[in-house]
Amino acid sequence: MSILVVGSVAFDTLETPSGKRERVLGGAATHFALAASFFTDVRVVGVVGDDFLPEHEAVLTSKGIDTTGIEHVPGKSFHWTGSYVKDLNAAETLATDLNVFAAFEPKIPESYLDTEYLFLANIDPVLQSRVRSHMPNAKLVAGDTMNYWISAHRDNLLKVLRELDILVINDNEARMLSGETNSLRAARGVLALGPKSLVVKYAEYGSAAYFSADSFGDGLDRKQFRAPATPQEEVVDPTGAGDSFAGGFYGYIASRGAETQGKLTPEVFRKAMFYGCVLGSLSVEAFGTDRLQRTTRAEIDQRFEHLKEISHL
Amino acid sequence: MSILVVGSVAFDTLETPSGKRERVLGGAATHFALAASFFTDVRVVGVVGDDFLPEHEAVLTSKGIDTTGIEHVPGKSFHWTGSYVKDLNAAETLATDLNVFAAFEPKIPESYLDTEYLFLANIDPVLQSRVRSHMPNAKLVAGDTMNYWISAHRDNLLKVLRELDILVINDNEARMLSGETNSLRAARGVLALGPKSLVVKYAEYGSAAYFSADSFGDGLDRKQFRAPATPQEEVVDPTGAGDSFAGGFYGYIASRGAETQGKLTPEVFRKAMFYGCVLGSLSVEAFGTDRLQRTTRAEIDQRFEHLKEISHL
Repeated sequence: MSILVVGSVAFDTLETPSGKRERVLGGAATHFALAASFFTDVRVVGVVGDDFLPEHEAVLTSKGIDTTGIEHVPGKSFHWTGSYVKDLNAAETLATDLNVFAAFEPKIPESYLDTEYLFLANIDPVLQSRVRSHMPNAKLVAGDTMNYWISAHRDNLLKVLRELDILVINDNEARMLSGETNSLRAARGVLALGPKSLVVKYAEYGSAAYFSADSFGDGLDRKQFRAPATPQEEVVDPTGAGDSFAGGFYGYIASRGAETQGKLTPEVFRKAMFYGCVLGSLSVEAFGTDRLQRTTRAEIDQRFEHLKEISHL
Repeated sequence: MSILVVGSVAFDTLETPSGKRERVLGGAATHFALAASFFTDVRVVGVVGDDFLPEHEAVLTSKGIDTTGIEHVPGKSFHWTGSYVKDLNAAETLATDLNVFAAFEPKIPESYLDTEYLFLANIDPVLQSRVRSHMPNAKLVAGDTMNYWISAHRDNLLKVLRELDILVINDNEARMLSGETNSLRAARGVLALGPKSLVVKYAEYGSAAYFSADSFGDGLDRKQFRAPATPQEEVVDPTGAGDSFAGGFYGYIASRGAETQGKLTPEVFRKAMFYGCVLGSLSVEAFGTDRLQRTTRAEIDQRFEHLKEISHL
């Protein structure tokens, strides 16, 4: 089944221990869409400026991604400048030029209205809520957020959380949202805010899933799940790793949607976590979207098997 | 098969967010021996002072642990005072009173000389080497170390590492030993120093095992292995968690020694990692050795199954 992702399509200027790159294609929706495209049809809603050229759009369309919902407006695209030179695990933001993204008002094309899997990438929670309300037919809704919305727009964010089937965030965000430092208490605290299930990404330490009593619609309180990370010897560029994780994760869930009638099942959820890890690990091996662009499904499945081999008794 | 552990038997004065305790039984050899005792016969070599009373020895002997090798000398036992009030993940040492431990010269009782599994807990690497040379019949030798020996006694430590079948350390120690921050490179760097295999503990994020080409004596380059941690909602006292991990890990390996002729096998190694996680997770649920004292093998196996359930597809 198809996924609709709403989020940023941007250019990133990056410095990492591996080198520098100027204005490479990036943005949460871009990384997510590319990662999810290996599993299912993907539709994108975003906004770009005059600097977003046919060659950039082709990165998406060449993977079969539907870009009808990427609005072109006069001006420049969102441009982020960051450095990982001091710490590969923590981006230092040098400049955030929102440009046309500052006035982003998601517009859902008519042809997208039947999408059953909705992913609300990290944008203003007011916009996330608005998109959600325009997609009443979505069977499953997942989303992401970030520290800025958690601290400065908490009330708006809380409204979004109550409508999510799956919240996908990192461990710092889980701690900020819950006010708890212990990871298990933080997860319980976040679930108490409303999302039916929660995926927390612990970077190189893998990820964990936590479930509310009715995550799977059958009233059973499922156990949590822990997925390892694929160990990486060389991290070239961490930008978009979390979005690629989310894309691989949600893409796999949507690809199994016909069998599961659009519901979550524990089996699908667990495998999806492994696929998320795989896409995240691929993403960091080159700058921007380069590595995802040259990935194959066979390579993805090979890494999936590797991850299983190194984590199962 | 039996294990001989050589290391500290001590008293700890502890402050954690859960409270304070004065002079509770502790020390690396104590935690290790208790954890391993659920799996196999354990023998201890250590030194204590006049303050180590029959009631303290009974904590060990009541679990069938052989304390013949615990030497009693005039003076006070090793006493460590530490606080976890600022950070549960990092002990702040308030006082280290080595007392009789300062002149520790391990003496191996005649009755211990046939021990096939040797564990060299964190002590001066010169003593570790000496014990190793006194135990030529040991089929498998594992050990631990700490930042002090890595930085100030590196050459002596390197001699020990070359003689180890398994080095069990935490991620900071792996980084210090190798000079690498990336976890995979750090592991390869440590293996290059000589140990046949390496277990790195990542605290709440689980643990990983890395193998040299001939870890299992058959020339095959085994894949690494990742074990999750049992998530803990309440950490009362982290002291000894790493030693309890090592005890559970090595205890299980020794318990399977008859079937494996004292050799490592991938299957046993992996399960041992899970048992290590289980014993580590139990250890932190009460002050000192309290939780290990009241643990049962049934409870351990139940947690083992839980760990498998939350990590397998």
